[in-house]
Amino acid sequence: MPPGSRILGLDLGGTNIKAVLVDEHGDVLAKQSYTTEAQQGPQHVITRMSKLCEAICQTNGVNVASLVGIGIGSPGPLDIRRGIIIKSANLPGWENIPLRDEIQRRVGRPAVLLNDATAATYGEDWVGAGQRAEHLVLLTLGTGVGGGIVCNGEIVQGYYGNAGELGHMIIVPDGRHCRCGQQGCLESYAASSYLVPLAEEAARSGRGEILATLFRQNGRLEMEDITRAAGAGDRVALALWDEACRAIAIAIVNLQHAFNPKIVLLGGGISAAGEILLQPVRQHFEKRTWRMMNDQPEIRLASLGNDAGAVGAAGWFLHLHERGVV
Amino acid sequence: MPPGSRILGLDLGGTNIKAVLVDEHGDVLAKQSYTTEAQQGPQHVITRMSKLCEAICQTNGVNVASLVGIGIGSPGPLDIRRGIIIKSANLPGWENIPLRDEIQRRVGRPAVLLNDATAATYGEDWVGAGQRAEHLVLLTLGTGVGGGIVCNGEIVQGYYGNAGELGHMIIVPDGRHCRCGQQGCLESYAASSYLVPLAEEAARSGRGEILATLFRQNGRLEMEDITRAAGAGDRVALALWDEACRAIAIAIVNLQHAFNPKIVLLGGGISAAGEILLQPVRQHFEKRTWRMMNDQPEIRLASLGNDAGAVGAAGWFLHLHERGVV
Repeated sequence: MPPGSRILGLDLGGTNIKAVLVDEHGDVLAKQSYTTEAQQGPQHVITRMSKLCEAICQTNGVNVASLVGIGIGSPGPLDIRRGIIIKSANLPGWENIPLRDEIQRRVGRPAVLLNDATAATYGEDWVGAGQRAEHLVLLTLGTGVGGGIVCNGEIVQGYYGNAGELGHMIIVPDGRHCRCGQQGCLESYAASSYLVPLAEEAARSGRGEILATLFRQNGRLEMEDITRAAGAGDRVALALWDEACRAIAIAIVNLQHAFNPKIVLLGGGISAAGEILLQPVRQHFEKRTWRMMNDQPEIRLASLGNDAGAVGAAGWFLHLHERGVV
Repeated sequence: MPPGSRILGLDLGGTNIKAVLVDEHGDVLAKQSYTTEAQQGPQHVITRMSKLCEAICQTNGVNVASLVGIGIGSPGPLDIRRGIIIKSANLPGWENIPLRDEIQRRVGRPAVLLNDATAATYGEDWVGAGQRAEHLVLLTLGTGVGGGIVCNGEIVQGYYGNAGELGHMIIVPDGRHCRCGQQGCLESYAASSYLVPLAEEAARSGRGEILATLFRQNGRLEMEDITRAAGAGDRVALALWDEACRAIAIAIVNLQHAFNPKIVLLGGGISAAGEILLQPVRQHFEKRTWRMMNDQPEIRLASLGNDAGAVGAAGWFLHLHERGVV
């Protein structure tokens, strides 16, 4: 690919559409985002996405026609072979929308569609904390828990395209009820949408001194309150946080034996806790991994933050383009 | 590849070395095996392996020089990039043995080395019960629990080459102690080397009527006694067996969300139980998998039996050969 080539990455979320322009090395040359306005329906959103493509190119002196192509990360489930969003919890009214072809037609450049968490994983491997390990797992810890897997430099999508739903690995048989219908999922132990209500319930009944105080002050709790209270020694917060870190560590042991990755990255909003997350996860992992071989993955924090999805989508387009697939 | 081409597959075990000659479609044209005589050391075993290659060719009128190449399945851990057996629990004295290059040199044909369970998985995908699903997991249930993963038609080896050690996924946090140093591994719930001693302990103390009778008769129990006693309603055997099937089902849920395979196969000695294994595993799986999407894998019995490793090793050689890797 000639030097100076540009690839466009898009990350479609329920609230914002993010665009990045990257070069062939994955350096981010420009970022821009629009609100999604998801409530106005798919056609409106697709129009906004194509306008964003034109806007970011224009602002940065790039001829749209000269783009190598476009990678689109999107929430799923997707039909990746046909480039279709089957449906989405965060995009009301999106059913069987051929997003890839719509963007290709409107922008006039070839495109690929992939799952947003998978895109983020590829981005972290390509130019983030994964440092081109090519055998990498990303766990995204936020409102929910998701993730993605890169194996031999390729993203793992699976037969149905839903690979990397790591939040729904069962960690505690017959454990907490998860919204997905299962019991004991990683998500139900490590996602803020489960931890915050549990902390609020405790605070409401006066358990957890620091949490109870914060709850009285603000009438509610946020995830940061839990990590901060845990750091300050609040017993309820510590117990919840330790259980979360233990569940994450067990998931990492299981991923170690299944995929044998070089690196496991922790990303998503909760990973902003930094060392407060990393240290207990590493300790639980060290205590629980086997002694048979020295094939433990390094556990690190992800580094691309909210850009990971758009950058990774662009990188995945480039990867397929270089192999002649698109 | 010209019709009539032959590929040789080898499966190196602690007791036997198995060889198969296959054609480009994976049809097995001949099988032959030697005892390993592992106690006589690596050089002796490698000589036996190369003699077996010559013998199976000669018996079947195949010119060794006309072989496309040789795939070698072996217990690990391996250095797959360099074709080396790092060490092996079942092959005393094997440390850093360059098996691939030794076989290449002695037989005079190109070879590849891969993990035996991975080879079996590839074999099942290629010409066994996997029916070229290309997104497949094999769980081998025997003395221990192992397995392998095929993703997008490629075997998953991982960064360290130990991917597919599915018996050491943690199913029950802080559960049974496993020989690997972890607690709650699938293996410690579903392998005969754990189930038989537990059944014998119960039988010795008079629990489990049928088990106790068999134990009194034979002075010991075998895995088949447990499945048979469970089938006949023995309470102790039923409880052990149900716990094993539950653990297998939870592992399958976790593999579903990580890899999204089309098919999960159950192989190894314990899978000889057939429907007695398949039905409860499917029931536990149906009860425990999510309701969010219809991406449940089919759960089936493997079909190649003891040939899977040798056939899969040959198939993997062919796969790499067709891609110009060897």
